Formats: sequence, structure tokens, C-alpha cells
Amino acid sequence: MVFVLKPNVTKDQINAFIYKFEAEGFSTILSTGTEHTVVCLIGNTAKVDVDHIVHTNDIVEYGKRVTEPYKAVNRIVHPENTTVRVGNVSIGEGYFTVIAGPCSVESTEQILEIAKSVQLSGATIMRGGVFKPRTSPYAFQGLQEEGLKMLLAAKKATGLPIITEIMNQTQIPLLEEVDIIQIGARNMQNFDLLKEVGKCRKPILLKRGLANTIEELLMSAEYIMSEGNEQVILCERGIRTFETMTRNTLDLSAIPLLKQKSHLPVIVDPSHAAGIRSLVAPLAKAAMAVGADGLMIEAHNDPSRALCDGAQSLDLKQFEELMVDLKRRALFEGKMM
Amino acid sequence: MVFVLKPNVTKDQINAFIYKFEAEGFSTILSTGTEHTVVCLIGNTAKVDVDHIVHTNDIVEYGKRVTEPYKAVNRIVHPENTTVRVGNVSIGEGYFTVIAGPCSVESTEQILEIAKSVQLSGATIMRGGVFKPRTSPYAFQGLQEEGLKMLLAAKKATGLPIITEIMNQTQIPLLEEVDIIQIGARNMQNFDLLKEVGKCRKPILLKRGLANTIEELLMSAEYIMSEGNEQVILCERGIRTFETMTRNTLDLSAIPLLKQKSHLPVIVDPSHAAGIRSLVAPLAKAAMAVGADGLMIEAHNDPSRALCDGAQSLDLKQFEELMVDLKRRALFEGKMM
Amino acid sequence: MVFVLKPNVTKDQINAFIYKFEAEGFSTILSTGTEHTVVCLIGNTAKVDVDHIVHTNDIVEYGKRVTEPYKAVNRIVHPENTTVRVGNVSIGEGYFTVIAGPCSVESTEQILEIAKSVQLSGATIMRGGVFKPRTSPYAFQGLQEEGLKMLLAAKKATGLPIITEIMNQTQIPLLEEVDIIQIGARNMQNFDLLKEVGKCRKPILLKRGLANTIEELLMSAEYIMSEGNEQVILCERGIRTFETMTRNTLDLSAIPLLKQKSHLPVIVDPSHAAGIRSLVAPLAKAAMAVGADGLMIEAHNDPSRALCDGAQSLDLKQFEELMVDLKRRALFEGKMM
Amino acid sequence: MVFVLKPNVTKDQINAFIYKFEAEGFSTILSTGTEHTVVCLIGNTAKVDVDHIVHTNDIVEYGKRVTEPYKAVNRIVHPENTTVRVGNVSIGEGYFTVIAGPCSVESTEQILEIAKSVQLSGATIMRGGVFKPRTSPYAFQGLQEEGLKMLLAAKKATGLPIITEIMNQTQIPLLEEVDIIQIGARNMQNFDLLKEVGKCRKPILLKRGLANTIEELLMSAEYIMSEGNEQVILCERGIRTFETMTRNTLDLSAIPLLKQKSHLPVIVDPSHAAGIRSLVAPLAKAAMAVGADGLMIEAHNDPSRALCDGAQSLDLKQFEELMVDLKRRALFEGKMM
Repeated sequence: MVFVLKPNVTKDQINAFIYKFEAEGFSTILSTGTEHTVVCLIGNTAKVDVDHIVHTNDIVEYGKRVTEPYKAVNRIVHPENTTVRVGNVSIGEGYFTVIAGPCSVESTEQILEIAKSVQLSGATIMRGGVFKPRTSPYAFQGLQEEGLKMLLAAKKATGLPIITEIMNQTQIPLLEEVDIIQIGARNMQNFDLLKEVGKCRKPILLKRGLANTIEELLMSAEYIMSEGNEQVILCERGIRTFETMTRNTLDLSAIPLLKQKSHLPVIVDPSHAAGIRSLVAPLAKAAMAVGADGLMIEAHNDPSRALCDGAQSLDLKQFEELMVDLKRRALFEGKMM
Repeated sequence: MVFVLKPNVTKDQINAFIYKFEAEGFSTILSTGTEHTVVCLIGNTAKVDVDHIVHTNDIVEYGKRVTEPYKAVNRIVHPENTTVRVGNVSIGEGYFTVIAGPCSVESTEQILEIAKSVQLSGATIMRGGVFKPRTSPYAFQGLQEEGLKMLLAAKKATGLPIITEIMNQTQIPLLEEVDIIQIGARNMQNFDLLKEVGKCRKPILLKRGLANTIEELLMSAEYIMSEGNEQVILCERGIRTFETMTRNTLDLSAIPLLKQKSHLPVIVDPSHAAGIRSLVAPLAKAAMAVGADGLMIEAHNDPSRALCDGAQSLDLKQFEELMVDLKRRALFEGKMM
Repeated sequence: MVFVLKPNVTKDQINAFIYKFEAEGFSTILSTGTEHTVVCLIGNTAKVDVDHIVHTNDIVEYGKRVTEPYKAVNRIVHPENTTVRVGNVSIGEGYFTVIAGPCSVESTEQILEIAKSVQLSGATIMRGGVFKPRTSPYAFQGLQEEGLKMLLAAKKATGLPIITEIMNQTQIPLLEEVDIIQIGARNMQNFDLLKEVGKCRKPILLKRGLANTIEELLMSAEYIMSEGNEQVILCERGIRTFETMTRNTLDLSAIPLLKQKSHLPVIVDPSHAAGIRSLVAPLAKAAMAVGADGLMIEAHNDPSRALCDGAQSLDLKQFEELMVDLKRRALFEGKMM
Repeated sequence: MVFVLKPNVTKDQINAFIYKFEAEGFSTILSTGTEHTVVCLIGNTAKVDVDHIVHTNDIVEYGKRVTEPYKAVNRIVHPENTTVRVGNVSIGEGYFTVIAGPCSVESTEQILEIAKSVQLSGATIMRGGVFKPRTSPYAFQGLQEEGLKMLLAAKKATGLPIITEIMNQTQIPLLEEVDIIQIGARNMQNFDLLKEVGKCRKPILLKRGLANTIEELLMSAEYIMSEGNEQVILCERGIRTFETMTRNTLDLSAIPLLKQKSHLPVIVDPSHAAGIRSLVAPLAKAAMAVGADGLMIEAHNDPSRALCDGAQSLDLKQFEELMVDLKRRALFEGKMM
């Protein structure tokens, strides 16, 4: 249940209003926008009489029930777009932010070369996996802490904020200097991990699971936000279907739906979705056209020798060419890039 | 197995070359492009020695095996893009063709009003269902022959070529004045129907089935082409997945894949894919950006009263607005629209 | 909306009752069971007042709305199990009927050998494809009319009723001596074909489509029944999922659901579902345990040389062994086999 | 690559044989069966010459490459069935073990009542969730440590071994008195958790993920076994498909496939698969017939008031009736129950 407050309400009035509900056992979400202040009640609101509250509280403009199970991520509760900021990089409506880098950090030289190159091409955040979720225990599992040091060295050398994937909650302290923590598709419903990163005060990139619905993605974001972390970026990266020609089926319809239903930024990972290098550029363009706020792209200095996911990685020249095209398109779309 | 012939080969030489293979029981596909002439053998080529044929036939530049099961639709066999022409409308690479109209023809007034309006907005082909495939036998099944007359009246009044869906092979004679015959998703593997429309000499729009792979779509196009009809347009319209928020999951990755593997035009139907009006525009833009050659869009003069699929139909104003935007985008993409 | 009539109602009373509704534009389904007579109204019943009708018609015991979109196939409308009879073979609750034979009829010798063998093993209906739906136009398409003659010869020699697949409505007259017409998975929503076989007066085996829901299967059966043909057998044969180790995913949960929601017999095709010979026996046993009324199994005299689907065909010895086991199980389950 | 050793090889000979490979950097899996001793090499065996090793090592009977990516779970590596033992309960080929209990532990009274009842009915292991993975952060999350104490009290009162789900690796010490640790479907590819439970020396029940292939399930079991824990039980619990009438689609074909490819016990959870109470009994019977080694079933003393998953829970009477039937069937199948 949300209550949209009148324009000139004071902080004290809001606190008093919220206090009453919390005293009755409800949790509340307060969303203070430039135009609206919205208070959302969490809990069993079945017996709460919306009209009565509107009539008996001067500060309330109107109230309504939120039928969706997600609250904090819901655009009804928080009508204004959320922009996530990392250093001087913004991710959200009006921007088009490109995160690039290799599937795995392989060496200091590799990650430095890639970082400098993608930065020159216009990427503003660098990705690099150090803890790798691999189907086989015998496959390369990432360089672990050593890889993290290399990634941090690249951050230092370029000034680029970095993102890397977390595999379990005990790694949170290790990732202190990492700018964005990525929750991978296979952990999208690792609820304990979601709660723990919800207690962090740094942005979380939450990838949609391979068999998870759009609503479930929003519910997992709700897990993070319900612990107090409001800096969540959603990422569509393809779902599992019967089609075998692509690695996964990129669900671009999810982008406008997520933007309608939520205020959170939404980006697209065309590399993992397709699993085929030649599809990355067309899908990247489509992602921008459909309304995404950015991309996460795998770029590698030598894809044919990449320790993982080489077949879907662009080489640095291909990445540069794609970025030239995307910048032209961002201009056309009126997006900052 | 394909043989690419040398530039200045004569017709007689080609015929003699082909004749030898047909005498041995092979079928052949001859593809005469502006740059290459390609001969493709169909049949059990396991024992054919490619190198031997290249060495013993002066007119052959090189030969290679076609590993894909589709031949006539294969870009290897037919390297140049196919453009399907309907009246003075072209569908294929370099164009962006919009087919619009209601799910069902409902009355002469309705179809005329819609036809004139979508024509003004820039649609160059009109759609309108008269034989409707409905899940329930008790649902509106279309106006049948009466509806067809109304559609033809609209064609006459506007000069727009028309497309309508066929339900079974006995309807082919009825559709003589229809410009493009549509094979619906549920009939994509109705192989006898594919063979029969393959004997027609008019364009066929072939929709991907709800659970059919990209390769199966190409194989169904091969059914049509193997009967001699080369005017096939492929249409992606969403596949079935576990996601329930959209009617189907639009597989935009299929577009660049189909364009790589085949020379046939590929269009997108965002209306049936999403089943939600507000997703039609973003998906239409994404379809253009990903490389589609056009769109099929449901537009209705009064969607709230449409006899079917109202929830996914644009009204005529919304369609006009979308077309204004798409024209601006076509200019940007360098596509004729 | 259904009305369950009182026990001793006369035919005249029923006719008078029905007549009133038909005069108002409704269609009706009359289901005369040994215990209940049920009248179902088809049409827009939104404004019909159930209670009023119950109160004003002495012959009505009670009435209720049918919320499901399927009516004639609905167990509410027709509470007693339907048993389909073919010669002296019964398919339905209490029986366990095995249909066996090759994917394709290949020669008179082949089909005769298989027919005699599967009959000895206990199959009571013989299958054999003559018009084959194949993904590729270049694959073996069945022996067509010649194959049909061979199948009929096998019927004559063994006395076994036969079932074969129809590909389009023009083939109906050809299939006059065929005992059961099969609608294949790819034609499950070929609605015009459903209507045409609905006009036949012989049993129809309707296979579930690869991407069709249980409700859609029931709706397709409704198409057949709404044309007057009450002899419909439903067949689960696997659906498309992301799993690639099996050809399809056999959905055995569908069997008890279909038996709950409908009165029609339900059989299982484990051969097409799995696509792997070694899975046929375990899935056949599971199908019986879950409540299926029978099986359709591919059996071949020489699977390694079969013209299609050899990998999923049992040889005649394997089929015999399976049948010995199934008979033992039928005894245990209290089913006639 | 596996080497099957000759019958009378000594421990010293085996150690010497293994030592050579480990010195070259390979890992090895040693499987000592009653009939065969098998040594499996893990690592890059591309350059290893199988024949050379067979010829130069007297103790080797034959060797062959293992093409599957799973090794320790592979039946080729470990030809004999694995039986997992918990107290005096056995899970594996020849047994049919039923695990029963509520979705969630709700109170000491509830869990005690259920435990005693299902024990009387013949269940030999008790389930009860205390850490619950819920889609919504606002849904009941289980009674946590308090619930665990109640579950342990029920264990003490009945002597039944207990199983409960783990949510993250920090909970392992908490679960010391739990007999089997369950990895839920959403954590099937939580690789770090798999590694940690792989270091435990107690049985792990590994549920198949909602969108995971059979091969991926085996690979996740490999993660556990590669850390040294050989007591893994696989559990099929339904996968995500387009079908909406059931909660998930139970993939019973997976059972015989898993039993062919692996030596591990395989059980079925019909409750979560179907999500519908009336399907539990038919699916349980089908699971036994298809070859499963047991079941995990949700049973509750008052399903209509269950804090989660009430709609799929049997009440204690229904559970008892099912068990009576299953025992009769186990006798028929020759399985200990």
C-alpha cells in the first residue's frame, strides 16, 4: 500500500506518519523524489482501510494498494528513475553506459592492455572475472585473489571503476575496492547472498537467472533493497529455451517491461546471451533501441586464446568499431554515452 | 554440394554441367547472381568427389560441401540477398517494409478506415485475417469468404497489396487476388500446405512456429522453395518459453542469424510476440536496429472493441506516431522506407 | 453452463428443455450417462441466471457454470469415462491398449512381419506411417498410397485394426479402411484439419503438440468433438524443453491431469518422447503406473536399417519382452490387456 | 581416461600405478568395486596414449577415454551402484526409500506429530525446512535455528534420520547433527556451496535446478565428489517449461538416464514438481515404475494451514494411504521398502 504525500510536507510530519505504522508492526519504505514523496507499507495490509487513512491524515494526497509482490523496486512506490553512480559514471535513464572487459582476468598484462583499450574506445566501467562459476570443477576457476589484485591494478592504472562477480558471501570483504559487485545468473536466487550484498553500500549488478521470470528478477532485487541497498542494476543476459543455435535466448521484451514496472536501471549482456561473436553488435544496437540503459560486453585482446568464453568475445578492434557505432546511435537516441 | 562457376560461363555450358548430374539422379538448384553463378546438388552426395569435379570441369571455380540440411534457402548456395517484390513494394535488404492492419477483418467500413489510415502513415502492405486460427472452436473464426471480399475491396480502394493467412490447401484458389499468402505459426510444419504454396507463384510469408528452432524455420522455407517458389519471407513472431508476462518471447537473435544463414528477407511481428500494446513500439525499433527488413504490426481503429487480439493492437494514432519514429530511424540506418 | 437432470427424465422432457435454449441461440451438448444426464449450453451464457433455470425447470437437479473453455471434452459435462472401441478393441479406463508398429511402412514384407510379431506379443492395434511429416523435404516422405495398401494388406492378414497419420484433409477419403486416424503433434493446431476429422465417424488419435499446453490439447479435442465426433483419444508424446539429452521431455503429469479434467482416453508415446531405445521400457512402465490407458510404441524388425526413427524403435524381441512385463503389470494394476 | 585393472592386483601395485600419473600432474579417482578396480585420470589427457599404457603396465586389463565431462559420478569410472547409508537406512539400487515431512518446520508439536505419523506409515527419513528459500523477502523464511532445534527434537523422539536444506556455506557447522544436507534447486549451480559440502563427510541430496540439464546435474554432483564426498543422492524435482497447469514439469525420463550414466542413487520429489496434491500419488507410482530409488514427499498434519506449499502437501492420512500402495508396489518390483 502506498501513500503519495502532498508537496510541502515537513520531515517531522513524515516521520510522525511513518511512526504510527511502524508502531503497528508494519515496515515502511520512504521514497523522496523531486516531485513526490511516497510512503509504502510492507506487511499484511489486508485490514488497512486506505480511504480512512487518506481522510484522517492531512498530509496524504492519495493512497492505493500495490498488487505486485515487489515494493521497493516498484515504480509505483518510487516513481522517479533511479540512477546508480560509480565514481563519475552514471547508470540509468538518459545514459548509455558500456561495461567491457574479458570473461576472466588472465594476467596483469592482459587486463591492463584490455582496460586501456576499452577505455580509449569509450567503455566507462571495466569487467573482469576472478571467481568464475564454471559448470565443471575441472575447468579454469579464475585466478581468485591473484586475479583480483590484477584487476585492481588495472583500475589504478586507468581510473576505471571495476565490476567483478561474487561467488559467496564470505568474499564480500575481499571486494572492498571493487566498485560494483555482480551477482551472476546462477546465483540470482541465492537468497542469502542477496541479503548479504543488500547490507553493502555499493552498487550491485543483478543478472537474470537462466530460468527466471521477470517478476522473479524483480523479487530478487527486492531482497537486496529490503536490506537497505538501493543501488541495484538489473541485467538481462538471455534465458534458456529449446533453441540451440544460440547459447541462450536474449529476451529484449524484458527491458521495456522492467523499465515500466521498476525505477531501476536495466542493462543488457549480449555476449552471454548469444554466445556467438557475430551477434554481439546487432544485439547491442537492438538493446539500445529497445530502451536499455547500457551494456555489458566481453572484449578480449586475443579471443582465440581466451581461457573462457572466447567464442563470444569481441577483439579490441571489433569492440572499438562497435563503440563508434553505438556513440553515433546514442546521439541519435539522445542518450549520454 | 555447391559449385561456384567462373565469370563468363555460357548458358549452354551451365546446362551441360547440370545435365550430367541430373542424369545421375541428382536434383540441382541453379542460382544466377550478378557476380556468381552457383550450382547446388541435392541428393546423396556422399560419394561425389568435389576436387575431381573441380579439376575436370573448366567452368568450375571451386566447389564445397553444404553441411546444412537446407540448400535452396542457404546463403552459400545463393550468396546474394533475395528481394521479394509485390507490386511496387520491395521486401529485402536495404528496405524496411511495414505491413499493418487488424488481426481480423470485421466489416468493410472497418477495413477501409484502417487501410486508408495505415497507408497515410506509411504502411505499404495491408494485413487482415479472414480465416482465423483460434484455440477455441467457440471463438470468432473470422469472416471467411465474406471477409476476403472486404479485404479485396480495401485493396482496390487504396491500391495496397494485401496479405492474409491461409488455413488449408483447398483455400489456395480463393486467394488468387491476395498478394502475399501467410503461413501462420501453427502451420509452420504443416508440410503438405508448405508444398502446395510452394507450387504457387506468389510470395509466401512464413511465420516461425511457437516451438520451432531457427533451423526448422529454414527447413520449412526449403519445403516451399523446393517446389519452385523462390519468394519466401521469413517472420519471427516470438517463441514459447516459461516467461508469462509476455505472450511469447521475441527472439531477436534469430534475425541476424537468419540473415547470415539465408538470403531470404526477414521481418518481425512485435504484436503477436509481446501481446502487450506498450511493447510494440520498443520492439519495433529493436527489430530495425537488429537488422530486420520490416515489420508486421496489428493496427485497429478501435482496439478496445476488436474481435480478436485487441490488447496487442495499436490504435491508428499510435501507429502513425510509431511510423513517424520508424521513418526517422530508417533514414538513420540507411534503409528505404 | 451445465444442468444435471433428475434420474427419470423422459426424452421428450429433455428435448423440450434443450429446444428452449437452442431457440435462444445457444448450442447444446447432451451427455447421457448411466447415472446422470447432463445438458451443457455453449454460447455467451453471461446473462443466463443458473438458479432461475433450476427453480423453474422441474427436471433439473442442479446447474453450474463451466469455467473451463472446453465443454464437450470436460468431465463436468460428461462425468463418465469414454471408451473408444475399434473392432473388438477397447481404449479407455480399465483397459491398457498397446498400439505398435514401425515409424514408416517400408515394404509389404516388413509390415507383415512386424504386424504378425507384435500381434503375437499382445499388441491389439498396429501403427504404420505412410504419409510422413519430415523436417526436411529431402528426407524420406513415406510410401504414400503404396504404403497404405501395404498397411491394409497387413490389416487383412492379421485382423489388427490399423492407425496411420493424416497430413491434410484431402486424404480423408483415402483413409476409409483405416480404423483410427492420427493427428500428429505438428498438426495439433491445424484447426481446419481438426474440423474435417471431426466430421468423420471414426476414432481420432490426437497427439499433443511440441509446444502446446494441456489446455490447448483439450481445446483441440474440443474442435473435433464440436463437429460431432466423440471418439477422440488423447496422446502425450513429449514436449520441447531446454533438455537436449532426450528428444523431447515426456510430461507424465499430463496423464492424471487429463484424466481428471476430461473423460477421454489418454495414451502415451514413449518412443517419440525419448528418442532413445533404452528409455522406452522404463517410460512405458511409468506411463501405466501414472494412469495411462495405453501406449503407442515403435517396433521394427530391423531398427538399424529403419528408414526413419531407428534409434527409438524397439526390435521385435525387445518389444515382446516389454509386453511380457507390461502384461504382468496390467494384472497388478487391474487393467485389461 | 579410465584403466580397468586385472582382478588380483595388490594395493602396492595400484599405488605405484597411480603415483606415476600424479607425478605427471594428473589427479586420479580410484574406484574399488567387488569385481573391478578402476583408475580414472583427471586432467588434460589429450596426449596420453591409452594403448601404450595398457601394453606397458601388466596390471591393466584395458583402458579407454571417458568422453563425458563428469568423471567421479560416471558409471564408466565406477561401474557398481553406490548405496548411501544414513544410520540403518539405505538409499540406492534395490531399495525404495521414502523421505517425508512438511515443507517447513512450524512448531515442536507440528514436527513431532508429523514425524511420528510418517514413521508409522513407513517413511524412514524425515524432511523439514528451517532455512527456506522464498521468492519474496516478505514471505515466511523458516524458523531458522529455532526450527532446527525442533527438527532435532523430532529426530531424537523418533530415531528418524533427518534432512534439511542448507542456504549458504556458513551454515555447515549448524547442521552437524543433521543426517543429510539438501542442496535446493536454486543452489544447484552455487559452485562454492557445492565445494564446501563436498568437504563434509555426510550425505548430500542434490536437487536438479529448474533450468538445468541432466548433464549439468551430473557436473554439480561432480563438484561435490571432486572434493572427496562420495555420498551424493540425485533428486529430480521438475523443470521449467511453458506448461502452466503444473508448477513444474517432472522429467521422469531423467531417472533411467541418470541411472545409466551414473552410479549414484536417484530419487524423485513429486510434490514440488507438480505443485498439486492430487498428482503426488500418481507421480510417486510412476517414479517407482521408472526406476527411482525413492521419493521425497511433503506431508503435513494440516495442509490448509501450512505456512508454505500447502497446496502440494498430502495430509497424514493421504500419506499413509499412498505408503500402503507403494509398499505393495515395492514388493511387486522387488525393492526393499
